[in-house]
Amino acid sequence: MAHLGQVELLTPELDATVWFFTEILGLTETARTASSVFLRTFDNYERTSVIVTRHHTSGLRRTTLRAASDEALHRRVAALEAAGRPGRWIDGVAGTGPTYLTADPDGHEIALYHQTEWYSAPAHLRPGLKNQPQAKPRQGIGVRRLDHVNYLAADVLPNVEFFEDTLGARPTEQIQLDSGKVSARWLTFTHKSYDIVYTEDRSGANGRLHHIAFATDTREDILRAADLCLDNDVHIETGPHKHAIQQTFFLYVYEPGGNRIELCNPLTRLILAPDWPLITWTEAERAKGQAWGLKTIDTFHTHGTPPLD
Amino acid sequence: MAHLGQVELLTPELDATVWFFTEILGLTETARTASSVFLRTFDNYERTSVIVTRHHTSGLRRTTLRAASDEALHRRVAALEAAGRPGRWIDGVAGTGPTYLTADPDGHEIALYHQTEWYSAPAHLRPGLKNQPQAKPRQGIGVRRLDHVNYLAADVLPNVEFFEDTLGARPTEQIQLDSGKVSARWLTFTHKSYDIVYTEDRSGANGRLHHIAFATDTREDILRAADLCLDNDVHIETGPHKHAIQQTFFLYVYEPGGNRIELCNPLTRLILAPDWPLITWTEAERAKGQAWGLKTIDTFHTHGTPPLD
Amino acid sequence: MAHLGQVELLTPELDATVWFFTEILGLTETARTASSVFLRTFDNYERTSVIVTRHHTSGLRRTTLRAASDEALHRRVAALEAAGRPGRWIDGVAGTGPTYLTADPDGHEIALYHQTEWYSAPAHLRPGLKNQPQAKPRQGIGVRRLDHVNYLAADVLPNVEFFEDTLGARPTEQIQLDSGKVSARWLTFTHKSYDIVYTEDRSGANGRLHHIAFATDTREDILRAADLCLDNDVHIETGPHKHAIQQTFFLYVYEPGGNRIELCNPLTRLILAPDWPLITWTEAERAKGQAWGLKTIDTFHTHGTPPLD
Amino acid sequence: MAHLGQVELLTPELDATVWFFTEILGLTETARTASSVFLRTFDNYERTSVIVTRHHTSGLRRTTLRAASDEALHRRVAALEAAGRPGRWIDGVAGTGPTYLTADPDGHEIALYHQTEWYSAPAHLRPGLKNQPQAKPRQGIGVRRLDHVNYLAADVLPNVEFFEDTLGARPTEQIQLDSGKVSARWLTFTHKSYDIVYTEDRSGANGRLHHIAFATDTREDILRAADLCLDNDVHIETGPHKHAIQQTFFLYVYEPGGNRIELCNPLTRLILAPDWPLITWTEAERAKGQAWGLKTIDTFHTHGTPPLD
Repeated sequence: MAHLGQVELLTPELDATVWFFTEILGLTETARTASSVFLRTFDNYERTSVIVTRHHTSGLRRTTLRAASDEALHRRVAALEAAGRPGRWIDGVAGTGPTYLTADPDGHEIALYHQTEWYSAPAHLRPGLKNQPQAKPRQGIGVRRLDHVNYLAADVLPNVEFFEDTLGARPTEQIQLDSGKVSARWLTFTHKSYDIVYTEDRSGANGRLHHIAFATDTREDILRAADLCLDNDVHIETGPHKHAIQQTFFLYVYEPGGNRIELCNPLTRLILAPDWPLITWTEAERAKGQAWGLKTIDTFHTHGTPPLD
Repeated sequence: MAHLGQVELLTPELDATVWFFTEILGLTETARTASSVFLRTFDNYERTSVIVTRHHTSGLRRTTLRAASDEALHRRVAALEAAGRPGRWIDGVAGTGPTYLTADPDGHEIALYHQTEWYSAPAHLRPGLKNQPQAKPRQGIGVRRLDHVNYLAADVLPNVEFFEDTLGARPTEQIQLDSGKVSARWLTFTHKSYDIVYTEDRSGANGRLHHIAFATDTREDILRAADLCLDNDVHIETGPHKHAIQQTFFLYVYEPGGNRIELCNPLTRLILAPDWPLITWTEAERAKGQAWGLKTIDTFHTHGTPPLD
Repeated sequence: MAHLGQVELLTPELDATVWFFTEILGLTETARTASSVFLRTFDNYERTSVIVTRHHTSGLRRTTLRAASDEALHRRVAALEAAGRPGRWIDGVAGTGPTYLTADPDGHEIALYHQTEWYSAPAHLRPGLKNQPQAKPRQGIGVRRLDHVNYLAADVLPNVEFFEDTLGARPTEQIQLDSGKVSARWLTFTHKSYDIVYTEDRSGANGRLHHIAFATDTREDILRAADLCLDNDVHIETGPHKHAIQQTFFLYVYEPGGNRIELCNPLTRLILAPDWPLITWTEAERAKGQAWGLKTIDTFHTHGTPPLD
Repeated sequence: MAHLGQVELLTPELDATVWFFTEILGLTETARTASSVFLRTFDNYERTSVIVTRHHTSGLRRTTLRAASDEALHRRVAALEAAGRPGRWIDGVAGTGPTYLTADPDGHEIALYHQTEWYSAPAHLRPGLKNQPQAKPRQGIGVRRLDHVNYLAADVLPNVEFFEDTLGARPTEQIQLDSGKVSARWLTFTHKSYDIVYTEDRSGANGRLHHIAFATDTREDILRAADLCLDNDVHIETGPHKHAIQQTFFLYVYEPGGNRIELCNPLTRLILAPDWPLITWTEAERAKGQAWGLKTIDTFHTHGTPPLD
């Protein structure tokens, strides 16, 4: 696949969740229906980054991935069917064309498409430079893009192998427990160091979300975001700090609907090596905490959405 | 005097000017009358930073300065009267108490006061930390404070001497032409390296404004401001760059009413030496341009408000 | 007093401590004797910021404070003698003139002076701008100034009152326990929000140091410092994060001699109000942790230098 | 090709050029011969980023490009030969394996390879995190990578078509004059928005260099670099500012040997769209200057290396 497309996020607090995305993160609302609000980051060339949908609980309904061409899309569909993970064709939503809907082994909905509508900004959002789809937002942080999705899965390995074997993802880093079990792996479709992450759901539940992440232009944006969250009673779970794994500068907050949202900044780090070896972190290495010594907070291992009863 | 208080700025485009201050700079509107809008920066402990007033042209109507105490205020009034620059007592506006209104030799209104109302934020603007008067704005840059005022004056020296001799300002840097004439001088009341600047008005006119400036928290804020100006058709005159004089990182724009506005960032530079010697820049030194080599733009020497016919 | 002058820091690991100050913080060595190395930050107008002295243990030997004039110095000396805290005149060191040496009630050496030698950079350290004493260092962070000293004291109140009553410090913030005891107070001589801090030494010991702090130009400098510490095995105690009290962005590390060093950045925050009211934080407020939720690390309450047996 | 490898830069001032790369940019010297010094950026997984070679004049001798595999390398070689641009096999240098040496139509040496030695840091340069090849430098800026090469060519089009048709580069932006002539085009092998640029050499000369560029982690790094250049008499040609084309935040300086060096920062901007359309800028659009209004400096159109007689 070429890159991450959009996510559909579920929330029991639609208005508050949309307030968070527009007023704190600086996403732009492009449309709404009775139950869903369509939002975009300013540098998305496609129409939609996030669909927020009213629901009885929180969680992630769907992740879409764009294929590089119609041919590539059909090759992936064939690979899915050959691998015993068939799906079905549905109409695309929010600007995307024919979409093939399947799921990872853990049950997260994955939707593949190629055709997409290039975003054209209305007059009041027209950018000053023609190589940018939309003016930079004046409100909130103005995050650049939906950066990655981090799934929880009862068993990490079959899911990352599904992404690697049928969708063309490449692993860049992982955590391997002393038992030999892979408890997390980071995957990429691009020169970004990761687009998709799977982390073990210690509860054993299926189909849950750890977090979705948005890339900011600068680390200063993340520090400003922390101030905005502080002043607006948005729960900061942990950060700002720097991950040892992937070196991402991060801030984790809970949006008002309960989903964990990361603001992330990788500086200019990219994985350009075509033969980058998978880096493995041991339990002992993980016990050292994050890059600058911050201990990983307990809820990071327990909170997922939807919450368990 | 203790520090700069507020400014009253005139504009022929009230709505557009207020839009600029709130949407780009991130000031907060606290009140409005038929002709004026009252605005504040988030870290002002007093109620008002800028009064924007509808007028047939642009310019600066008034600058207020706060005295450290009532006694200090009366000492300054006595000094003004002894120096042959008497004024008159008026009611304070926008949260300030009894105010003594005078003018500098060039005719800029200067108003002195001590009593002031400490700002108390309404519920929706309440900050997360008790050592901050107001929540950080979500829209625009969220400049921290009105930082300094730069007047144009037909003759710089009598005006800076007025500030030094009767108001207690201390000079930190100046430009002295080969002819011996002082064409600009930077003055401070605080440990900031300047609060007030006078620059020669080459047109010979009186009472005009070169610019008012707002301090940002970071240089990144100024780079973001430049993007917001670009995307919102706010005229950028020059910058971002670093001044050689005072080392300020700057961006100069024209607000929609025509007044030049600076966004400035001094990093953590302060003048702590009680006996800091006045630093003099020569014509030859000035000819080198700004700190990193940017040539000073022509309009910087000609544009003032109100404009000349 | 006008402002903080220099500190003399003790270390059992002279070479390693000097390596830390020059290679990580980017201080410049100006001179050395058999037992001491003289170091300066690039924006210090005086000759010396820190004297590092070989000793059997760590700790702070002396803090110097500059008076605004000889007259001011003598007024402070008279005040000390009147308050029953007399000292003695000694020769100044490292560029300072006649110095009056006394101590706070907890036993920390305090030395007052006015006359000082303005630093003149040698050719290879000459700055590009005449309003800066020295070129910005190419190695390490290049911290701008020695920013503040945080003493530990068995009993905070008599010490802060000593600074307020005889040395002219003004309190800006404090922590008051439910018992009514003041367990920490922040004091300033300038428009910086603090220059001197006293924190309760829970061990009951006297004369110990909590930390000395250096101001960086940017928060990015502190993030870079964290990386340099990580890569060079300098122990990071906590941070980077933002203090609730005073809002300082901070990083605490232990230099190789064991003394805690803070890199701090206040953005452009200043206390300009001449009548700023002392802000009091309660135990309950402190229990919330730092500004963005980081819990205060245990060693922050226990580690001081010299260490206790 | 997978990505840019290394460049060999010529200089008549070897020591001064190496001083610039190590002390200002923060590159690390790994080896030297009688005539060449081998340098690397801290995040290069390969051994060498820049070879600086003593020469009677300045300029760029060679650019290497890494292929994704041996198979990919041989496919490119076949394509070159089919396209009438054959080269010859040479031994790789500075850690690279068998290398196929050819040239673009304008005469710039281009060398293709796949096999490469992964860098292993000596003990004193060992990083704190295992996903980084080397400790971050303490001296200078510590640029992350050699980011792109900008060639001058008498005729742009045949050269960019050579890169597109035989080497697999994709065009992202270009300048097209009113006459229809393409005067500059930006090409990429990766998700970076460009790796290679061709600009018209108005002198009509062949084989010259406009600049090589290094990516910094932050825009603040570039502002710090400007200060270091100011204090160390490195000529700043223009910037810091933001390009309209590609939106890169830039600083252009001349290293002591005369070659133009860019420090560049793209924030987190990437071109993820597999079908990104080539964006064309007209003469009129170019006349507006850079993104925030800076006029393009004259030498930017005339200075290239080696200089013309």
